[in-house]
Amino acid sequence: MPVRALWWKDGALHLLDQRALPGRAVVLHLRSAEAVARAIRTLTVRGAPAIGVAAAYGMVLAARAGRPGRERAAKVLRATRPTAHDLFVGIETVRSAWERGDDPLEAADLYRAAIVDECHRIGEAGAPLFARAKQVLTHCNAGALATVEWGTALAPIRVARQRGADLFVWVDETRPLLQGSRLTAWELAREKIPHAVIADNAAGYYLATGAVDAVIVGADRIARNGDFANKVGTYEKAVVAKENGVPFYVAAPWSTFDARRANGRSIPVEQRDEDEVLTLAGRRLAPRASHGRNPAFDVTPSRYVTAFVTPDGVVRPARLASAIPRAR
Amino acid sequence: MPVRALWWKDGALHLLDQRALPGRAVVLHLRSAEAVARAIRTLTVRGAPAIGVAAAYGMVLAARAGRPGRERAAKVLRATRPTAHDLFVGIETVRSAWERGDDPLEAADLYRAAIVDECHRIGEAGAPLFARAKQVLTHCNAGALATVEWGTALAPIRVARQRGADLFVWVDETRPLLQGSRLTAWELAREKIPHAVIADNAAGYYLATGAVDAVIVGADRIARNGDFANKVGTYEKAVVAKENGVPFYVAAPWSTFDARRANGRSIPVEQRDEDEVLTLAGRRLAPRASHGRNPAFDVTPSRYVTAFVTPDGVVRPARLASAIPRAR
Repeated sequence: MPVRALWWKDGALHLLDQRALPGRAVVLHLRSAEAVARAIRTLTVRGAPAIGVAAAYGMVLAARAGRPGRERAAKVLRATRPTAHDLFVGIETVRSAWERGDDPLEAADLYRAAIVDECHRIGEAGAPLFARAKQVLTHCNAGALATVEWGTALAPIRVARQRGADLFVWVDETRPLLQGSRLTAWELAREKIPHAVIADNAAGYYLATGAVDAVIVGADRIARNGDFANKVGTYEKAVVAKENGVPFYVAAPWSTFDARRANGRSIPVEQRDEDEVLTLAGRRLAPRASHGRNPAFDVTPSRYVTAFVTPDGVVRPARLASAIPRAR
Repeated sequence: MPVRALWWKDGALHLLDQRALPGRAVVLHLRSAEAVARAIRTLTVRGAPAIGVAAAYGMVLAARAGRPGRERAAKVLRATRPTAHDLFVGIETVRSAWERGDDPLEAADLYRAAIVDECHRIGEAGAPLFARAKQVLTHCNAGALATVEWGTALAPIRVARQRGADLFVWVDETRPLLQGSRLTAWELAREKIPHAVIADNAAGYYLATGAVDAVIVGADRIARNGDFANKVGTYEKAVVAKENGVPFYVAAPWSTFDARRANGRSIPVEQRDEDEVLTLAGRRLAPRASHGRNPAFDVTPSRYVTAFVTPDGVVRPARLASAIPRAR
């Protein structure tokens, strides 16, 4: 049974509590827009495409409950996290259907299905890149948990593997919240895809010693010129990959592309609580007198990107602007 | 009272248990070469200059106990960790004194005093670099805990601060063993030097957004051409610093320089237990089915180094070979 991050059932949004993984697989049933907003803010559900779908169902819950009102619900859900473009696309898809008098649930279901389909097509488009790249590095979790099903960065790996590719995945643990060691490793272990978890610091060691043939990551927001925001640390990996001549791929559905943004300079970067860095599982790591800083994302200029893996094919940065569908 | 990593007293090597910091300041009394070897292997004492001094006293303990014999003790201590050059210098200093019939304790005391003096001179030599660099990034712990007193990377920061410089230190937490958030932050907090702990992944974000004026790190082994080994992750920071035009300094006493090694290609990199990455404080982070890889160091080519801060001044990589004292 493939992993799914979330699904609609019996009038509620069901989702896997990603804070509890890999230790426990807990399914939560959310029944209000506010509960969905809280789940997004606390990273109970995370990953740009997945929070877009979750927020779409948050709008459905508001429409069904009759509260909060349409614009209020959209506002509450938009305020959860500033960086992922998909969040705003998911909310707007259902908000505008609701405004037109269309069925919000049908709009959300169609949006979810489109994301799943696009992720599968990302897998098909990207798989040939890994026919010869045996050792692949990924950062954070851009798997099924981040996208409902298939994943973005992990989709080409899954499809290449189904086609018989002999792949090994280097998994950055991805401090502070360990989406790599907790979530990506969990997805890979379930499917018996060979992998090793490494400290984020060790990625450079493996890139420099010839142990990485390609890097692939997801994204939270991609500007028209190809500059993109993704989990903090992505920028370092991209710079070091380029320095070592290792191809660097970014996989994303169209909902992640922010076609109205010319470049990455003004992408908002969420700053999260210092305790995510200073503590782990309630245990204080740093001295009590020390403070921390915790940007959740960084912005990588497009010159470090070899190509984008989109639902409609592999696109070089120079051709990206013309490849983004008009409708976005 | 300044921090000291270790000292000799009442016939025993006293050292701060660095595994217990910052939570508890526990002083251990070691009374055999084997106990010192164990302390080095388990990172109870760590930092290249400090393990060199600890191993020197390990030889003293063997000489006083009459066991293990001189060559056996040297062998046991050398086998603890392969990367730090200082370890071998510290052992050889006392081994050769013992062989000559000189007093081993006097040789160890002189070695310790020389390291402390060199670290202080590193501070004096490097402080002018930070007269205008307000925001400094450091990786791992290259403070008093790593060097007996003063530190290597932290020595110029301490001296600049005594001279009135208004400094702020970005502290990489330094996974997997958190020498940054546990030890560097502890040293800085004790002296009320403003600082913030960040995930290693966030260093690139701050380097790219103009929030870092200079990077300074210690080293475990420096080849004649300036290639150097240091805590894993150093290489990524050096590449990203250069990419952003931020000066990158490496501070070390002469015991860290391996003058017989032409370049960094053959520096041995210690591979440590995967559990250091997969668990934290006994808590499993990754799925049980996942494995990890854990190189403790990486090697940074000298082209990324702006200058070395040595006891005898600031030296550009191109001039390094001729600056290393003949005796080493």
